[in-house]
Amino acid sequence: MKKIMNDPSQIVNEMVSGFVKVHNKKIYRVPETNVIARKEKEMDKVALLSGGGSGHEPAHAGFVGRGMLNGAVCGQVFTSPTPDQIFEGIQAVQQGGGVLLVVKNYSGDVMNFDMAKDLAEMEDIEVATVLVDDDIAVEDSTYTQGKRGVAGTIFVHKILGAYAEDGMALQQLAEEGKEVVANLKTIGVALSGATVPEVGKPGFVLEEDELEFGVGIHGEPGYKRESMKSSKEIGQELVDKLKAAFDWQSGDKYALMINGLGGTPLMEQYVFANDVLERLNQEGLEIEFSKVGNYMTSLEMNGVSVTLLKLVKDEWREALERPVDVFNW
Amino acid sequence: MKKIMNDPSQIVNEMVSGFVKVHNKKIYRVPETNVIARKEKEMDKVALLSGGGSGHEPAHAGFVGRGMLNGAVCGQVFTSPTPDQIFEGIQAVQQGGGVLLVVKNYSGDVMNFDMAKDLAEMEDIEVATVLVDDDIAVEDSTYTQGKRGVAGTIFVHKILGAYAEDGMALQQLAEEGKEVVANLKTIGVALSGATVPEVGKPGFVLEEDELEFGVGIHGEPGYKRESMKSSKEIGQELVDKLKAAFDWQSGDKYALMINGLGGTPLMEQYVFANDVLERLNQEGLEIEFSKVGNYMTSLEMNGVSVTLLKLVKDEWREALERPVDVFNW
Repeated sequence: MKKIMNDPSQIVNEMVSGFVKVHNKKIYRVPETNVIARKEKEMDKVALLSGGGSGHEPAHAGFVGRGMLNGAVCGQVFTSPTPDQIFEGIQAVQQGGGVLLVVKNYSGDVMNFDMAKDLAEMEDIEVATVLVDDDIAVEDSTYTQGKRGVAGTIFVHKILGAYAEDGMALQQLAEEGKEVVANLKTIGVALSGATVPEVGKPGFVLEEDELEFGVGIHGEPGYKRESMKSSKEIGQELVDKLKAAFDWQSGDKYALMINGLGGTPLMEQYVFANDVLERLNQEGLEIEFSKVGNYMTSLEMNGVSVTLLKLVKDEWREALERPVDVFNW
Repeated sequence: MKKIMNDPSQIVNEMVSGFVKVHNKKIYRVPETNVIARKEKEMDKVALLSGGGSGHEPAHAGFVGRGMLNGAVCGQVFTSPTPDQIFEGIQAVQQGGGVLLVVKNYSGDVMNFDMAKDLAEMEDIEVATVLVDDDIAVEDSTYTQGKRGVAGTIFVHKILGAYAEDGMALQQLAEEGKEVVANLKTIGVALSGATVPEVGKPGFVLEEDELEFGVGIHGEPGYKRESMKSSKEIGQELVDKLKAAFDWQSGDKYALMINGLGGTPLMEQYVFANDVLERLNQEGLEIEFSKVGNYMTSLEMNGVSVTLLKLVKDEWREALERPVDVFNW
């Protein structure tokens, strides 16, 4: 395991410290925490807070800024942040309109964000939650009841961020979020495992001629391991899974994200995007918005995921297209 | 070698095809070429064209758009584009104000961009060139006379892109570019080699406990190979090299880019940024602009580079800060 780091136990602390040094004009670190918050406040609007275990960068800190998140809570690597850290985050970002928590569906995150919500409500801060469970690979998993939350979460940040900027109220935002999540599905493939710095060896190992479909962003098992495939074959497999899950019809409108899991070069991501878009076009879908890059990673994992959001409302596309002032959108 | 691809000989073609499918609202592919060009024209302004071998994504296609490049010519992997492809690029982007070529200093690129310039001048298109040679690691290299051109090239795109948008004339832009390059220095470190798809094995191999300082973005040899180091030690080594090259004084103003070479997760890049910024602060430098991420990669190479631009003019900082409409800035 070769990593550019110092003490593995300090990697999140030093990452947050580096993030704040680089972006200090627009964000700050809440003292004594791993919470990153936006400096600018928009009084009486809903504040969006997300977070979870670290190791998924740029998620979530890279999406803090005008038009997306107001703050991000960075847990230890692949570990939920504690309720008190999340509560610090809620207090830091709240600006009078209540706080919306965008939470990926992992048991630890669900529990800790929920406890933080209770703490905040005792301080009379209104809080609502949107739970994201877009990964269609498996039902229940190592750290999850139901489906896991993965790259689709970034679309939730983007759409709800635009609505919050427009002044939408908390409960309505939460409802809108639920509707986005109901139309959001992701599936991925891994060509290699990833090594948690404090563990020092990969969470799982794939041989030189193997890949695994449906692996989670913490290396949770997928649904099948096969011999290495071409980009076209991988795209075919993942699109078939999405097709079965959406049951789409020719002419349906979708937004697409091809997400790199950390170790896959952009060149390969675009080759893969070419194959996926060709398949989606053959299906007659109208892809009205698309995005390619590393958004929700798993440390240095080699692999990609495909996210589709069914655009049941034109406003969602507009929200996705709206310019924002964040570091990694 | 596990790569998400189909036929290795088609990887650039399919990447360009994917890029255009994803970003077709704003860019197009010049027919029968690997040239990407911006759809929108700003008549009578200078057009900026860059390019070179592929495998460095998002460079350069990811920087095509309002405020940066007007076009990018994508050669085969680690191979200069041919003069006729570059000439096609010049013809596609020119909008009446002449064309400025931003060329990284590799012998093949220098020669082919120069031949394309001659072809364009025969068609009465005014062309000027800015040659970027920011890599201070070695003098002369596998494919280069003098110093290599690397990640600093993106700062050249950004500053000259802003000036071109303001309507600066061709020769003045070329002069300004020369001045930027004179104040621009980069140095990198590799923890692993990268595999050119058509070759099928890594250009060089580093053992599990080795790193190499000063490796080029095509795997050209660096200046020393040592045992693996901490982020702090790596930062110290690279900053010392930059210090010797700049001969800076406390209070000097700089812009910084920490660039991931492809396989290094953002988490590690920010840990490294933390160490580099700490050292630069100790030196008394004022870092007025900074940026962290994958901008000039070398396929899946694990490693980072540090770029510093001495801000001898406040206008350069303003140009760096100006919002743009490109995919990967």
